[in-house]
Amino acid sequence: MEAPGEAAGLRCHRPVAEMPDLPFLPFCVLLGSLGLLCVAFVGAWCQHWRGGFSLDGSARTFNWHPVLMVTGMVVLYGAAALIYRLPPARRGPKLPWKVVHSALALAAFVLAVLGLAAVFRFHNAHGTPNMYSLHSWLGLVTVLLFSCQWAAGFSAFLLPWAPNWLRAFYKPVHVFFGATVLMLSVASCVSGINEKLFFSLKNGTTEYKLLPAEAVFANTLGLLIILFGVLVLGALARPSWKRPDANSPDSHQPLLTAER
Amino acid sequence: MEAPGEAAGLRCHRPVAEMPDLPFLPFCVLLGSLGLLCVAFVGAWCQHWRGGFSLDGSARTFNWHPVLMVTGMVVLYGAAALIYRLPPARRGPKLPWKVVHSALALAAFVLAVLGLAAVFRFHNAHGTPNMYSLHSWLGLVTVLLFSCQWAAGFSAFLLPWAPNWLRAFYKPVHVFFGATVLMLSVASCVSGINEKLFFSLKNGTTEYKLLPAEAVFANTLGLLIILFGVLVLGALARPSWKRPDANSPDSHQPLLTAER
Repeated sequence: MEAPGEAAGLRCHRPVAEMPDLPFLPFCVLLGSLGLLCVAFVGAWCQHWRGGFSLDGSARTFNWHPVLMVTGMVVLYGAAALIYRLPPARRGPKLPWKVVHSALALAAFVLAVLGLAAVFRFHNAHGTPNMYSLHSWLGLVTVLLFSCQWAAGFSAFLLPWAPNWLRAFYKPVHVFFGATVLMLSVASCVSGINEKLFFSLKNGTTEYKLLPAEAVFANTLGLLIILFGVLVLGALARPSWKRPDANSPDSHQPLLTAER
Repeated sequence: MEAPGEAAGLRCHRPVAEMPDLPFLPFCVLLGSLGLLCVAFVGAWCQHWRGGFSLDGSARTFNWHPVLMVTGMVVLYGAAALIYRLPPARRGPKLPWKVVHSALALAAFVLAVLGLAAVFRFHNAHGTPNMYSLHSWLGLVTVLLFSCQWAAGFSAFLLPWAPNWLRAFYKPVHVFFGATVLMLSVASCVSGINEKLFFSLKNGTTEYKLLPAEAVFANTLGLLIILFGVLVLGALARPSWKRPDANSPDSHQPLLTAER
């Protein structure tokens, strides 16, 4: 026997318990401020304690690595992930927001690649091997996964050739790996900050274990990054902030029109 | 105007796109094997390369720390989180599964406390300060959050005094922080393995950067832990594996009966 509502093509569920309702915009302002604070902290750490920035292959070239990774793989990435939760993006045509989502993710990816280039250049200039630590393995896995995620998302949702059944099949996979890449980014940042502090606060300066001001500052940066990541994942999981996709007339509309 | 089905106390949604359907039991066997593999890897690392285990305050006392944290905060914790997804737990009374969930989480917590005791004992025996690295800050935050999560979950869902509205309010918060604690645990493990390898592979043995067998083995352990965590979070997020709560006659039934 058909349940009420199924005749109208709907599936019915009993109400799902949800976190107490929060307005998105104040949360968004808080999250944006937290993201900017993360960028400011990582920049201040590298500028004030680690000697600033250059492109000469020295430790000052390395300093671009944490700044670019935190800005790209955490803050910009988080902004890209949450773009569909903005109130204007939850109404009206979806296509412009797909373009913004894709462009922000591409910007995040470009910063990540530049961040990787900075650490490779620093290692090569000093004859240090690349890709030996767990941090480096995890970081590279994260960026590679992100590149697949971006390419597959662009191909499926913005190019015209993917059939609708493939888009419907791939969408939850894209959403799942989107959250996964953010978790892996945060874990990479935490292990990287920890590693850098053990390297830097070893000789000739106060040791890490004596907890000098730099260590407190950079540990705090690590906790802020974690808080940012957890808040983004929490916002993504809130059912009431999700775009009511099926109501959108162009949720399956690609950017380009197929020539065939 | 009331939508069809709302009269029956239901809320109607259009079908939500979901990952292609997978049977839970083969996934569960795979995940269980992966969890055992993580425990075997961390045990083998400490036994084969780090000198084994003891309670004498030496580095062999420290070795209990990674084994207990991975076993408790990742593998047992993951099992506790997924208990309601087992097919027998999705039918019939919920109360016995609440007790199993709570008991597994308590066992995970006890192992975590023992794991913390091991590292504190090792540090104290060597005059090394405690709680300076980002790994230690994050790890302690994770265990403290877990202790609050367990106490609040026990008080709200197993003791009889919480009113139903409070349980309904707290449940999504409990679910959210449950996933958060697992993410933080995985990030703690990754930063801890990375840190331990920098400490251990420094002098008197092959350096970490030359990627000796121990480094490859422990880096692989880190990636296995991440894979385990991601699979648990993915399984938790699958709507089709969730227990249809509202159909359960005792989903609000506490363990004890209020005396009043």
